[in-house]
Amino acid sequence: MSVSAESAVEARTDRLVRLLDDRELDCLLVTNLVNVRYLTGFTGTNGACVLSREERLFLTDFRYVEQAGGQVRGYERVEAGRDMLGDLAKRLHGRAGFEDNHVTVEAHRKLGEKVAEGVELVPAGGLIEGLREVKDELELGAIRAAAAIADEAYGQLRARGLVGRTEREVALSLMRALEDRRAGPSFPAIVAGGEHGALPHATPRDAEIPANTLVVVDLGAQVDGYCSDCTRTFATGQLDDVALEAYELVRRAQEEALASVRGGASCPNVDAVARDIIEAAGHGEHFGHGLGHGVGLEVHEAPRLGKTAEGELRAGNVVTVEPGVYLPGAVGVRIEDLVVVTDGEPEVLTSCPKELVTVS
Amino acid sequence: MSVSAESAVEARTDRLVRLLDDRELDCLLVTNLVNVRYLTGFTGTNGACVLSREERLFLTDFRYVEQAGGQVRGYERVEAGRDMLGDLAKRLHGRAGFEDNHVTVEAHRKLGEKVAEGVELVPAGGLIEGLREVKDELELGAIRAAAAIADEAYGQLRARGLVGRTEREVALSLMRALEDRRAGPSFPAIVAGGEHGALPHATPRDAEIPANTLVVVDLGAQVDGYCSDCTRTFATGQLDDVALEAYELVRRAQEEALASVRGGASCPNVDAVARDIIEAAGHGEHFGHGLGHGVGLEVHEAPRLGKTAEGELRAGNVVTVEPGVYLPGAVGVRIEDLVVVTDGEPEVLTSCPKELVTVS
Repeated sequence: MSVSAESAVEARTDRLVRLLDDRELDCLLVTNLVNVRYLTGFTGTNGACVLSREERLFLTDFRYVEQAGGQVRGYERVEAGRDMLGDLAKRLHGRAGFEDNHVTVEAHRKLGEKVAEGVELVPAGGLIEGLREVKDELELGAIRAAAAIADEAYGQLRARGLVGRTEREVALSLMRALEDRRAGPSFPAIVAGGEHGALPHATPRDAEIPANTLVVVDLGAQVDGYCSDCTRTFATGQLDDVALEAYELVRRAQEEALASVRGGASCPNVDAVARDIIEAAGHGEHFGHGLGHGVGLEVHEAPRLGKTAEGELRAGNVVTVEPGVYLPGAVGVRIEDLVVVTDGEPEVLTSCPKELVTVS
Repeated sequence: MSVSAESAVEARTDRLVRLLDDRELDCLLVTNLVNVRYLTGFTGTNGACVLSREERLFLTDFRYVEQAGGQVRGYERVEAGRDMLGDLAKRLHGRAGFEDNHVTVEAHRKLGEKVAEGVELVPAGGLIEGLREVKDELELGAIRAAAAIADEAYGQLRARGLVGRTEREVALSLMRALEDRRAGPSFPAIVAGGEHGALPHATPRDAEIPANTLVVVDLGAQVDGYCSDCTRTFATGQLDDVALEAYELVRRAQEEALASVRGGASCPNVDAVARDIIEAAGHGEHFGHGLGHGVGLEVHEAPRLGKTAEGELRAGNVVTVEPGVYLPGAVGVRIEDLVVVTDGEPEVLTSCPKELVTVS
């Protein structure tokens, strides 16, 4: 990691430590590995932090000591047992925050038994998730790179064709296109043709993709832990009016909603821009999911764009805008862009065309 | 799923319901998705069960209703909101068990607020994990298939060679060998040459694998959700005495420990068989992990073979036997078989050779 990258990561812990005062916490236990990675850069499967104004401790077990030596900066590194609860409990003092949205009831009970007398375990989940909502430049760089790689995979798909290939085969070749570019997938790719496209979370089948239908393709790449997320719906030839109208409806809803994305926009209102258009066309019941979600170290994170979402978008959020219309027994359409929220026009990270593209 | 497969899955819930009486539970809430899959066959990312002697309910959201219709048998299927806690809370009654090893402190608090008056939330984690320790024939079939596919990938690796390829390239071609056989990986493959092999959980690097060293390769396949797990350590040419001795030591420890695996054997004692041999050779401190672990829907599950493990092996357990010796700055050796515990000799699912194989 470069010096500037290191200091970008260290600045996250600085911001977090300042939040401890607001919560009147003497220290914070961080056990959610995604949050541990955010704070330290650690990518192993067992690690935790204990933070206070005075101390920044990172604990891991035997297997990851050497790896942590290379990855974790700005923290005192401590080797712990594989079940680290006891070692962690010993480091807590005073009003000790813990991630109540991650620590299980059982782990909480054990922690409570192991902490020193007078230590109070205080629910403090979501502090780091809150910081993660606004991405720094290091994070944006990784997400832009991931989105660009997924775009290339889509380009390869358009060149290679769809008709006669199985959904599974297409999904696999998309994953391999990512791997060839040294990226992982952020989730298993979705390739769903015809009526199978009416399942929003379809698993690719061994069925051959027919001509003259719609195919929903949902793909994300992962670079340095950061995800991208993009959906396109392709035609495989001539479409009937139902499919054409569904496509144009979703495209219009997507573009209108996208235009409303900016810092200060209310999350439910952005959702409503797309939802109102789809409802007005009589397809409200066919759009059963939210408009979008934050993307970062997790492919689904805060903020959320949906009917029951709360709060406002802020500059530096990275969100998807992905309305869909799913017609059971017929076809599905979803169009999804990934965007960086700014105080003006959003920065759209997805460069694939949105007009209907025929891939036969 | 065939009729016999369906009834095998349904028998799991029958066994579980009988355990509720022992715990004086009126119902059980199952939210750990691995356990939900074990009971119902459901493979989506949002689903839960509520079980009692009278009722078997399966809840999922909009996105998975159609998929659940195809997968979930023997349960009444209910569509719930995406955040299912409220819908689940309403279904609980009396002494309601919940998975305290999975439910977070926050979710537990919310459940408590939403249940009807008089409902008591009772920690009941581990009940299903206990059942999962002893595999049924359907499970053994999937694990055998996964192990056979990983063996084929190892065969391809031996044919293809190692020297001059990067660790990353070899790892990727192993993963692709699994995919070509319609299996997923049970974890990202480990390929670690030379001194990098001294990290038990090394991530494949872009470094070319040199001649005349050892390379640790750890690979698992996944079939129908069930994992396999196999490690082999290959020579890439002439080895020095340190490497040769480490290899032969680990092989001897592995074979002796394997011979001690059977129903009724104590888990720490099986670990001790290998550990005593490695300690007697002066390498105790270089074997920093446990001897093995259960494998099933998760690649690490109960029972555990280790110094601090408890209990005994039982016929129907599927466990790894994988001693290792890691010499910092020099080489690492690990040899791992996957075996089914029986009341006699274990059924070894790994068919790769264990004598030192040179792959140049």
